[in-house]
Amino acid sequence: MGTKRVYTFGNGKAEGKADMRNLLGGKGANLAEMNLIGVPVPAGFTITTDVCTEYNEKGKDVVVDLMKAEVEAAIADTEKVMNAKFGSTDGTFPLLVSVRSGARTSMPGMMDTVLNLGMNDETVEIVAEKSGNAKFAYDSYRRFIHMYGDVVMGVEAEVNPFEVELDKLKEAKGYKVDTELTVDDLKGLVESYKAVVRKYAGVDFPINPWDQLWGAICAVFDSWNTERAILYRRMEQIPDEWGTAVNVQAMVYGNMGDTSATGVCFSRDASTGENIFNGEYLINAQGEDVVAGIRTPQEITLEGSRRWAERNGTSEEDRKANFPSMEEAMPELYAELDAVQQKLEDHYHDMQDMEFTVQDGSLWMLQTRNGKRTGAAMVKMAVDMLDEGMIDEKTALLRQEANKLDELLHPVFDLKALAAAKELSKGLPASPGAATGKVVFSAEEAEKWAADGKKVILVRRETSPEDLKGMYAAEGILTERGGMTSHAAVVARGMGKCCISSAAGLAVKSDSMSIDGVTYNEGDFISLNGTTGIVYEGQVATVSPSLDGDFGRIMEMAEKYTRMYVRTNADSPADAKAAAEFGAKGIGLCRTEHMFFEGDRIWKMREMILANDVEGRKEALAKLLPIQREDFHGILEAMDGHGVTIRLLDPPLHEFTPNDEDSQKEMAERTGIAQEVIKAKVDGLHEFNPMLGHRGCRLGNTYPEITEMQARAIMEAACDLKAAGKDPKPEIMVPLIGTIKEFEMQEEIIRRVATEVQAEKGVEVDYMVGTMIEIPRAALTADLIASKAEFFSFGTNDLTQMTFGYSRDDAGKFLPVYLAKGLLKQDPFQALDQTGVGQLVEIAAERGRATRPEIKLGICGEHGGEPSSVEFCHRTGLDYVSCSPFRVPIARLAAAQAALR
Amino acid sequence: MGTKRVYTFGNGKAEGKADMRNLLGGKGANLAEMNLIGVPVPAGFTITTDVCTEYNEKGKDVVVDLMKAEVEAAIADTEKVMNAKFGSTDGTFPLLVSVRSGARTSMPGMMDTVLNLGMNDETVEIVAEKSGNAKFAYDSYRRFIHMYGDVVMGVEAEVNPFEVELDKLKEAKGYKVDTELTVDDLKGLVESYKAVVRKYAGVDFPINPWDQLWGAICAVFDSWNTERAILYRRMEQIPDEWGTAVNVQAMVYGNMGDTSATGVCFSRDASTGENIFNGEYLINAQGEDVVAGIRTPQEITLEGSRRWAERNGTSEEDRKANFPSMEEAMPELYAELDAVQQKLEDHYHDMQDMEFTVQDGSLWMLQTRNGKRTGAAMVKMAVDMLDEGMIDEKTALLRQEANKLDELLHPVFDLKALAAAKELSKGLPASPGAATGKVVFSAEEAEKWAADGKKVILVRRETSPEDLKGMYAAEGILTERGGMTSHAAVVARGMGKCCISSAAGLAVKSDSMSIDGVTYNEGDFISLNGTTGIVYEGQVATVSPSLDGDFGRIMEMAEKYTRMYVRTNADSPADAKAAAEFGAKGIGLCRTEHMFFEGDRIWKMREMILANDVEGRKEALAKLLPIQREDFHGILEAMDGHGVTIRLLDPPLHEFTPNDEDSQKEMAERTGIAQEVIKAKVDGLHEFNPMLGHRGCRLGNTYPEITEMQARAIMEAACDLKAAGKDPKPEIMVPLIGTIKEFEMQEEIIRRVATEVQAEKGVEVDYMVGTMIEIPRAALTADLIASKAEFFSFGTNDLTQMTFGYSRDDAGKFLPVYLAKGLLKQDPFQALDQTGVGQLVEIAAERGRATRPEIKLGICGEHGGEPSSVEFCHRTGLDYVSCSPFRVPIARLAAAQAALR
Repeated sequence: MGTKRVYTFGNGKAEGKADMRNLLGGKGANLAEMNLIGVPVPAGFTITTDVCTEYNEKGKDVVVDLMKAEVEAAIADTEKVMNAKFGSTDGTFPLLVSVRSGARTSMPGMMDTVLNLGMNDETVEIVAEKSGNAKFAYDSYRRFIHMYGDVVMGVEAEVNPFEVELDKLKEAKGYKVDTELTVDDLKGLVESYKAVVRKYAGVDFPINPWDQLWGAICAVFDSWNTERAILYRRMEQIPDEWGTAVNVQAMVYGNMGDTSATGVCFSRDASTGENIFNGEYLINAQGEDVVAGIRTPQEITLEGSRRWAERNGTSEEDRKANFPSMEEAMPELYAELDAVQQKLEDHYHDMQDMEFTVQDGSLWMLQTRNGKRTGAAMVKMAVDMLDEGMIDEKTALLRQEANKLDELLHPVFDLKALAAAKELSKGLPASPGAATGKVVFSAEEAEKWAADGKKVILVRRETSPEDLKGMYAAEGILTERGGMTSHAAVVARGMGKCCISSAAGLAVKSDSMSIDGVTYNEGDFISLNGTTGIVYEGQVATVSPSLDGDFGRIMEMAEKYTRMYVRTNADSPADAKAAAEFGAKGIGLCRTEHMFFEGDRIWKMREMILANDVEGRKEALAKLLPIQREDFHGILEAMDGHGVTIRLLDPPLHEFTPNDEDSQKEMAERTGIAQEVIKAKVDGLHEFNPMLGHRGCRLGNTYPEITEMQARAIMEAACDLKAAGKDPKPEIMVPLIGTIKEFEMQEEIIRRVATEVQAEKGVEVDYMVGTMIEIPRAALTADLIASKAEFFSFGTNDLTQMTFGYSRDDAGKFLPVYLAKGLLKQDPFQALDQTGVGQLVEIAAERGRATRPEIKLGICGEHGGEPSSVEFCHRTGLDYVSCSPFRVPIARLAAAQAALR
Repeated sequence: MGTKRVYTFGNGKAEGKADMRNLLGGKGANLAEMNLIGVPVPAGFTITTDVCTEYNEKGKDVVVDLMKAEVEAAIADTEKVMNAKFGSTDGTFPLLVSVRSGARTSMPGMMDTVLNLGMNDETVEIVAEKSGNAKFAYDSYRRFIHMYGDVVMGVEAEVNPFEVELDKLKEAKGYKVDTELTVDDLKGLVESYKAVVRKYAGVDFPINPWDQLWGAICAVFDSWNTERAILYRRMEQIPDEWGTAVNVQAMVYGNMGDTSATGVCFSRDASTGENIFNGEYLINAQGEDVVAGIRTPQEITLEGSRRWAERNGTSEEDRKANFPSMEEAMPELYAELDAVQQKLEDHYHDMQDMEFTVQDGSLWMLQTRNGKRTGAAMVKMAVDMLDEGMIDEKTALLRQEANKLDELLHPVFDLKALAAAKELSKGLPASPGAATGKVVFSAEEAEKWAADGKKVILVRRETSPEDLKGMYAAEGILTERGGMTSHAAVVARGMGKCCISSAAGLAVKSDSMSIDGVTYNEGDFISLNGTTGIVYEGQVATVSPSLDGDFGRIMEMAEKYTRMYVRTNADSPADAKAAAEFGAKGIGLCRTEHMFFEGDRIWKMREMILANDVEGRKEALAKLLPIQREDFHGILEAMDGHGVTIRLLDPPLHEFTPNDEDSQKEMAERTGIAQEVIKAKVDGLHEFNPMLGHRGCRLGNTYPEITEMQARAIMEAACDLKAAGKDPKPEIMVPLIGTIKEFEMQEEIIRRVATEVQAEKGVEVDYMVGTMIEIPRAALTADLIASKAEFFSFGTNDLTQMTFGYSRDDAGKFLPVYLAKGLLKQDPFQALDQTGVGQLVEIAAERGRATRPEIKLGICGEHGGEPSSVEFCHRTGLDYVSCSPFRVPIARLAAAQAALR
């Protein structure tokens, strides 16, 4: 009978190892591994995940029978190593154990831990006697009953009845904290806890340690099928068959006197990345005391301790007397711990986050794992470890979490200041970074205040293109409505400005706002954390980002291993320059419509829209031509030598029209056209579903003169640059193509104008004509479209809208519910839906290439800066991704990682 | 050198034949064929379409050289057969010819015809002398110069200069009609026409007939590449390589005296289908005189002539003297013509539409083709010919134009009355049929007037669900706005009511309307032709449809040969019954939302929508339950034994809310909720793109209680029927599925409720749970969705909207331009776009079947009643199509034709 169900570890031996994670779970595999490399770990054993599956199939009784002998043998092994006896009655020190679940991947919110298992009326006495600490023994016992009652026996009530008993006692005695409890108090609590169990569970608390153990093991297996676990798995797409392992491990105690201690430590600084061993500990304490805040934890190293004292204004005398470092207080144990942390880091080739306990002069490691770190630390550690020869370049690159680079690119809050700040609201983290300033409620005010040198936060119900200049002027943007891809969010990300949208409880009026009923007026300070979506009251100090050498080295390595290159989405020469500094090689999306909002331009645009005939439109377009040419000149110059994809006019015309009475009046005054006529014209442009309306190439095909003007502006700018010795590479992109004929008609205009302009200017420019693939039909007929289009740029924002049938502007009504209920795992506007939308991208790429093998393929949707989407683009064989300037480094890293994987 | 470029015909011989259409063009092939079967046709020859291609490749001079010898030989053949001489100078009768283009398929708007070619100063004299009719000779000559000048020599000016000369002369002489021109006048015109040519073309008019001939032949080839020809080909998707043939044929004249005549005739009655030879002719006249209306054409047969006299109140004496039939006036030639028409019909197995000329006692056939016919005639002829043994059942079926059946299903205008009626406007033919009545401008008035027994036409800017009852009450509906799939159009088609939408020049006010500035008030009569889209002034008499035996026989045959069955889209028991009479086998789409608008129901629905929480919604839903159950009971009963697909609530909730102040006020009074609260709630439901918003299963997944109520209403109705011995087959359809998880969550609710209800009622019902495939992502992931869905119904309306990115409600802004410019060949909301949208249907059908081979597949979009789309559905292997009741016969026929093809 070959099935091995239980794997023991302890005393430098283990039946499992690190790469047996699927069978032993993450925790079990790591406990085994630490044993194997000679790190002191309390002995114990792991029951495999296969047993969990067996348990679900065959039932409790059968499986308990099947594993009984193995578990008993494993307990015997543990007893031997720990020199203790499970259920001791003969005065030997009793073996007490912890029982924990442990699946392949961490599943927070699953079953809780049971500690101190093995305690009963007999063993508690032995513990009291042997430890010479009756209070410790009885406190451990009553804690055990409480935990076991909650977790294993299902004691449940609105108010936890164990807590009720404790509070009753404390009130009767006038105690403020638990530590005031006397041994007799604790003995009394043990009895009243047992009564609680009897009342709520309907049976007596199990006295026999073996009954306790089997109860706990089965409770772990049962916990795999609780409602919350099933829901969690559905959301995280974890298969039901994986199951959980059960870890049973000998308890060790840091609270057995002054030769005992407990602590957490890190092999490097998780915040800065410096290669400095650090951590905190407490003598005569339990693990939870270190984090509970009742006692002040002390530093582990002397250096750390001195820094701590300096920060706190504690004198060296006071420090030494009352807060000595472990290095000073327990020099030998410190040396041992230091050696262990070094060994663990060397073994795992990464910064370790460790928990340890010193029991009566012996060091025990309870856990080690790769430590969490800030973005800055992530970069520094990788570069340092590379230099130390600990890891190679590929590992250094693969260890970067692309999204964390964001922290390095935006201002961040000073952590101290942040800890003290008061949270006002939480919204969507629409654009990362930190900002602090005075609130204003209109774009005009934002501009005005900023011109006066004041830092402002622009607060709007939602933003529109008319707010652009105000957004530029503001430090950050806060909106009442809108999602991650609302106008505010998209534009803010493009500008690298911090933005929070859909802030909870926020109600914006024309000259004030309220959050949960509290009113804030113009000029009041608030602070925004765009990375977390939290809004703070008042001014919170910020720290500017510094792109130091390590960051540069990571980017260099990314460049070396990547296949795809990264472009940026930029609509102005300034944005183009900023993106070039972040390493963008060209522009993947230049939206010409944003150019129409600046200053006086909008009036010329409106004149064009309100014209009655082709002649009228041409006249107005002639006024827009030089303005557009100048913009294109600047952008092409900023990206000299690189491709610049310029999208022709895309949004429906009513986005430009004067839609309120005041603007209509102004329009009437400016043009001499009657206000009613203007209103009628504007009303006539109204659409029920503008997203699916008269926009994109549908404009260019119904008003070819618009395309003519834009093509001319682009080509004139390019020819002028060429004549001046530059190397402009415009790529003219026709938006919203659904049929090849639409493209042909636009291409014909563009090429005709391009030929004319080149002849007029006497130079030839290297230009391309291509299209966006953003309509499902375009993807499906990409073979036809590629017969004429020289490049495809996947507009995955609109493609997602149409493939899902979700309006980005309205999805806020149901997407949050969908995400909460697990109907969607991710917001498809943030991470590309590879199952559905991805199919269309693949189909289009494949068919496009079949027709035109050299076709240039890229992506310019918001997804171009999202790591999992970038990886998809790599696998699909795209040539480049394009994203907002501040996402460029992230995309570069993600592209390199995709190539390495 | 094997290439044969010229094919001669004449005198019962021909080098070509009917099936050489690709090489000789349609006209050339038919002229050859008529010769071969012994029908008298003026001799001539055809230059092949290959020569056209050669001409475009090698150029004019080369190709003229290559074909010169053959053309000269062919002219010599023609001379021989016609006993005339081309460019005669020796007194022999000159051969005059026509030169016409003729491509594979008819291309109206291509090059015009050149007649009388061969005329010059010499030949005109011989014609004058030989015919004894100088006026005829010179009139033919001046007409030739005019035609040749226009067509071949490119004489062009804003006002045609030939017309100018003619008008000048007539004015000088005081003539009213051309026939007053004397021989001298005509001689003078010949000279001034030559001067016109010299002035406008810059060269002399060619005197040499050979020069004339080569000029005309080359002009035909050149015409293949004119802008309008290229545009026409692009729109009709005719390949450029096809080219055109050139037909050169001897002229014959019906205006050479009283032994000459010309006419058109039909082998059967094109209007009724009766097997009666009929037609019109004129003695001593040219072809154009028969249709020009200057002289009254006479009937060919005696019977026809007598009927004509009766209709006109012409006495038998007067008739005989002044309007004798050809049968009386030219009995021998009539007998010959009658034999020819019989021979041609027998040969082509179809009703023929023929043109003939009698020249000096000899009959010549100039053209024959399958005749156009009305829907009624189409049905009758096919059944008659089947009974006569002329064609078989398959041919009879395949010869039906499915769309024409429509004429048989709706009232039609009396043709006489229609001819006299005044057109007011033209709009989109949104729903076929004829209607006449008094205009009213609100649904309430329509109901009121109809209740008083008055026939009304409901005129609205656009309709909304609130107009339903008024639409029911009206004879027809006219709207200012909206397309072929607007609310008015879709609902009217469903009701079988005539409807015209987007009528040109129409402006609707609250109690009147104006068309092109003329005002019409409540009570004024108008008439609508929903089949053509024309609006007429006043009352135009209508004729009711009669579904006689022939129609029934065609439907029987369709049943015999079809593979797919036809369902109907119906929302009420009445509609279901009507559709069953047209042969619908089940319901493919029952929209539950229409049910919520009747009477008081809307207030209960609004109560549900405005509820603050689940409990409030459940309370309101409980009130809706019995109403829905009753509706479902009626519909399931009407379609007993057949599947009834019921779609759960689909439209966004704001379609039901009180959106104007008055209704909000009423709502406030009814519910006691403050009006501002109601307004705020309604405003909160506003969406930017409702089509892509919170609707379909997104409602059911955010408010599961709605699905619960609807599932319960359906299952309770079905169980009650089952208990009463009926056989209900509900198919519950979840709308707007994009992911399998959305379906799973809805399915779970439906099956749970179904199990509950069946247990409560103690019966089991044969029900299914399936989904609409209307979102591109659903089609792409159909393999996953089919793992749970028992049927797919293709909602091709929405699928088209999302695959093209066209909003049906807004596409009116650009679709007309797209159709006019040839960017789209067909409105994709009318005929399914097989290239794009069709791919998604195919993908979904294939993947759905791969997962669940027995999956039931159907279509319920508007396309289900459109013949080319029905054929696509057949090829894709769908089980059924579903369409509005009045399209059911069309769909049945189209399905049978698809199976036969």
